[in-house]
Amino acid sequence: MDKAATEMMAEESHRQDSANLLIFIMLLTLTILTIWLFKHQRFRFLHETGLAMIYGLLVGVILRFGVHVPQSMSDVMLSCAVNASPATLLVNVSGRFYEYTLRGEVSQGKGHQVQDDEMLRKVTFDPEVFFNILLPPIIFHAGYSLKRRHFFRNIGSILAYAFMGTVISCFVIGLIMYGFVWFMKLVGQLDGDFYFTDCLFFGAIISATDPVTVLAIFNELKVDVDLYALLFGESVLNDAVAIVLSSSIVAYQPAGDNSHSFEAMAMLKSFGIFLGVFSGSLALGVATGVMTALISLHKFFTKLRDFSLLETALFFLMSWSTFLLAEACGFTGVVAVLFCGITQAHYTYNNLSPESQDRTKQLFELLHFLAENFIFSYMGLTLFSFQSHVFNPLFIIGAFVAVFLGRAANIYPLSFLLNLGRKNKIGANLQHVMMFAGLRGAMAFALAIRDTETYARQMMFSTTLLIVFFTVWICGGGTTPMLSFMSIPSAVLGGSQWRNTKHESAWPFRIWYNFDHNYLKPLLTHSGPPLTATLPSCCGPLARCLTSPQAYELHDDDSDFILNDANVSSMYADVTVSTDASGSHTVNRNRSSTNSTGGGLCDEGLDHELGLAEHEVAIRGTRLVLPMDDPVEPPTTVTLPPPPSPPHSDPRRHRL
Amino acid sequence: MDKAATEMMAEESHRQDSANLLIFIMLLTLTILTIWLFKHQRFRFLHETGLAMIYGLLVGVILRFGVHVPQSMSDVMLSCAVNASPATLLVNVSGRFYEYTLRGEVSQGKGHQVQDDEMLRKVTFDPEVFFNILLPPIIFHAGYSLKRRHFFRNIGSILAYAFMGTVISCFVIGLIMYGFVWFMKLVGQLDGDFYFTDCLFFGAIISATDPVTVLAIFNELKVDVDLYALLFGESVLNDAVAIVLSSSIVAYQPAGDNSHSFEAMAMLKSFGIFLGVFSGSLALGVATGVMTALISLHKFFTKLRDFSLLETALFFLMSWSTFLLAEACGFTGVVAVLFCGITQAHYTYNNLSPESQDRTKQLFELLHFLAENFIFSYMGLTLFSFQSHVFNPLFIIGAFVAVFLGRAANIYPLSFLLNLGRKNKIGANLQHVMMFAGLRGAMAFALAIRDTETYARQMMFSTTLLIVFFTVWICGGGTTPMLSFMSIPSAVLGGSQWRNTKHESAWPFRIWYNFDHNYLKPLLTHSGPPLTATLPSCCGPLARCLTSPQAYELHDDDSDFILNDANVSSMYADVTVSTDASGSHTVNRNRSSTNSTGGGLCDEGLDHELGLAEHEVAIRGTRLVLPMDDPVEPPTTVTLPPPPSPPHSDPRRHRL
Repeated sequence: MDKAATEMMAEESHRQDSANLLIFIMLLTLTILTIWLFKHQRFRFLHETGLAMIYGLLVGVILRFGVHVPQSMSDVMLSCAVNASPATLLVNVSGRFYEYTLRGEVSQGKGHQVQDDEMLRKVTFDPEVFFNILLPPIIFHAGYSLKRRHFFRNIGSILAYAFMGTVISCFVIGLIMYGFVWFMKLVGQLDGDFYFTDCLFFGAIISATDPVTVLAIFNELKVDVDLYALLFGESVLNDAVAIVLSSSIVAYQPAGDNSHSFEAMAMLKSFGIFLGVFSGSLALGVATGVMTALISLHKFFTKLRDFSLLETALFFLMSWSTFLLAEACGFTGVVAVLFCGITQAHYTYNNLSPESQDRTKQLFELLHFLAENFIFSYMGLTLFSFQSHVFNPLFIIGAFVAVFLGRAANIYPLSFLLNLGRKNKIGANLQHVMMFAGLRGAMAFALAIRDTETYARQMMFSTTLLIVFFTVWICGGGTTPMLSFMSIPSAVLGGSQWRNTKHESAWPFRIWYNFDHNYLKPLLTHSGPPLTATLPSCCGPLARCLTSPQAYELHDDDSDFILNDANVSSMYADVTVSTDASGSHTVNRNRSSTNSTGGGLCDEGLDHELGLAEHEVAIRGTRLVLPMDDPVEPPTTVTLPPPPSPPHSDPRRHRL
Repeated sequence: MDKAATEMMAEESHRQDSANLLIFIMLLTLTILTIWLFKHQRFRFLHETGLAMIYGLLVGVILRFGVHVPQSMSDVMLSCAVNASPATLLVNVSGRFYEYTLRGEVSQGKGHQVQDDEMLRKVTFDPEVFFNILLPPIIFHAGYSLKRRHFFRNIGSILAYAFMGTVISCFVIGLIMYGFVWFMKLVGQLDGDFYFTDCLFFGAIISATDPVTVLAIFNELKVDVDLYALLFGESVLNDAVAIVLSSSIVAYQPAGDNSHSFEAMAMLKSFGIFLGVFSGSLALGVATGVMTALISLHKFFTKLRDFSLLETALFFLMSWSTFLLAEACGFTGVVAVLFCGITQAHYTYNNLSPESQDRTKQLFELLHFLAENFIFSYMGLTLFSFQSHVFNPLFIIGAFVAVFLGRAANIYPLSFLLNLGRKNKIGANLQHVMMFAGLRGAMAFALAIRDTETYARQMMFSTTLLIVFFTVWICGGGTTPMLSFMSIPSAVLGGSQWRNTKHESAWPFRIWYNFDHNYLKPLLTHSGPPLTATLPSCCGPLARCLTSPQAYELHDDDSDFILNDANVSSMYADVTVSTDASGSHTVNRNRSSTNSTGGGLCDEGLDHELGLAEHEVAIRGTRLVLPMDDPVEPPTTVTLPPPPSPPHSDPRRHRL
């Protein structure tokens, strides 16, 4: 009979689990239907991520106040006095041993609520799920669909904002919060310990602007590409900074001394750790990306192209394992998977069969979409389902002030410094938008929910949640009006500006481009000139051995290569440009012209043109090297207007 | 300092979680690479599912014997004597309350092993994951890609095998096992309780042949379509039977009486429950499927077609929620999601935009592929990572004998009875193959792992695992030789046979077809004649209101509709026919001809033809009703050979 009871309980618990999962699925379904409605009605003032949060909030309220699952009291309230709290407990019940695992501390006053909140707790699931399941597809998609041209053109500024900016912001916020906490202690508003390291930790988790939110909001607006590149690049990289910063603050607070101060030595140590972790993650990500490129290229695996399902599955799994591997090694999965995505988009993508290209793109798009909406509804839900909130009005006000000032201390001074060196300045209006669009989102949330054991952490978590809500709703919803108010032109990319930036970032860009085009592309993809032509003649045998047979075949077929590659780059352009978030354009050459807007088409054309210009330069450059026997035929792209930067004036031509 | 230690522990645990997940991902990656190799080398004797199991096994061995994660002993071994084992325990540690949750009973002898097996246990995760995450995509894909024509043509036989056959097998196995257990008690080989209901329960969980395994193995072989329909149909439906049977055996063993016998009354009750649960699940699945069709059709949501990402996400989520809803209501998710898939393939699929059609198909294919391989590697892993195995040689031998006899008692008598009524007999060779291909797989495993608390259940679980291994490796690997040995022709579908089966299942098929074509298709899709034409004239206003505007538009455009629908049916044909598991054909009209084999093309052509014949009949039938003002133009499909069954002799024409 005991067994039957156990069965029944298991059955009941299974049903409960299904119902909990169902709540989330329903939430997502509802969100999607409403998103569609918004798109249909061209409603712009509340973004879909904000919407997902509102739905989550509503469901949280219902679960908290509407549903009461009665539980048998006898199950729960047994106390047994021991002198420690181990992770695992063996309980001896009349000779039989039962194993218990630690779930966490319960505040004294809330002991009687435990059984009532069982359902709420079940809905509030393990933060590990965020890190291991939901984040990777989002970040990978970001890397995979990154406009690499714009990203790398602004790489200097992006690095400055992401690294220096985040550190500045972290310390500014930490210091301001320390002031507030000190004031709160004076007034007697503080019910627990709050050390300086806690303040710094709060600065670290709240400083990072979030790629999820920024991507979600700016993806749909046809915004200036440089602004987008700056905001997006910053937000992706500063996630990594935030993760490393927060964990090193925790790890390197001086041991054996209860003052919780932050020593200079520890700081230097943190900095070293930070550099190591960041470069390690980057290297790991690039290495995995290169590995996928080699696998997709290798003669041994050429037949893989015939099984596009296997191919897609393989790249999906390898990308995910990059994240997990980095995390398991103590690196930062976010950085690793981002660079893995970038590398794959640059090399591996070209080696895939057209079907796999479609498949992977669509798969990551869908995963990204679902994960993103899931995270935001979940954030909404947590406001009511989380059970140890500590809302302290003074702390919250302080946090808002600190976040604002921290952001200002990041953007304005750095922009001033950067403008000293930049040819195309970051205008005041762009700076204001960057200030305004410093949205906080999933990453801050994930870092805050990871540990909510102590009073300080609980207060941080509650405050973080409010800041996220505020930035997503107010800043996110206000971005469109803000952009038009600041008169940021949408997708400014005139010929003149292009030439400027081209000259500006000329030498590092050019060196990298040549290296990539002459050595990496032939090595890792089927495109580009064969290595036999680009490597010095002494390396002949090695070059022949490394060049793929397809590269030989493709070699005479440059025009096809141009079109191919231009298609790819215009495809990535779609992601930022098209007004529908679905990114519904197919990559096939026989693409069905779905109703894309005029603006999208126009910009696509431009990007296409740029791509062509780029490649034409490169190919002509190569031709000077190669003793080609075919005469210089007219370019196959005659139907297009002449490219903005005339290739013959390009210095590369003479160098090669 | 306490806090820093907690942080460190959390960090360590996070790293461990990542590593565990990484193990599975690596396993899958390895499996995929080897599958590719097998496909490349045309190696047929070990199937990919068997391969996945072997890899899982190897990793299990390594984890069990190779890796020892040292743990601090002090953490674990605290005993505290209480007089019950509640689900939640509050522990009072010097005034602070810590909460613990029950993990399960620990056998006395193994108390000291707890800390050593921590990693193994982490790898052996919650069986709920199987039910809620891994099973739904597999079953849904099965329904979505089901060859409905062949399935419904054999529906009578399938139902007989699935329902009566499984019940017969369950009782045969139960009785034989009871004999063995009785013998074991005599010999003194039994170390715990094992009641008659336990024997029946074992019969229930082991009787169901598994769709995952059957699908995986027969999908690739170009096997006789009727055989495939019978095997697949049986295996999908008997999963449901097994689930319901096992849960009713547990729930309806007589209460208050410790004999654990199985009363006739309880059996009748179980049967009623069974019928209720099955029909409820079916109704729920069909209802959700119809709902998706209506959503995709409704004027309110027509714009959804422009956002194929939203559309795909919506249908993905709704299909998943069907499963969860059914489970939460106490129905069977497997049955619900199967019929949801069938309904969606029949109606919703036609309403989707071409891009969404591609997307959904590819998405479900990929999910199915990953989930399937994951389940099989996991099964391999469990053999070594599970910690309470009870291998009893006598019980195992008994189980193998019982499973064999149970299968025989299912197939041969039922086939004999069915052949009395069938026009195209199930030949002796087909019966032998069905006997041989009664593979056990993921479902038996999932049912067995769900509860491993008692001695009897642990023994069942271990034995089930061995049976699954045996059937997948030996029966699965031997299927190809078996088929050629039994001289089963591959894909026999001559014109004559088609006519036979058509006449055979004529009247129920015809009634359903007419109803579907005249009322359901116009109501739920954009195709078919408008309801205004098929409904009696008194229902005119209702009909006009229900018919979608697109149906009006499409009405005169029958030829287009024919091609559309034929494409769809030929697409589903691909799944069984093509030799590459990737199913790489695109559904677009401008499908790129990837290298499909000759056999595939041939059969596709046949199916195409059949589809055309069908539709022409239907359309001409409709035309006789409608006072069409256009003269009977020559059919637009003149280039094809005349359909095997001449439409003019069809009785439907005169009835309408």
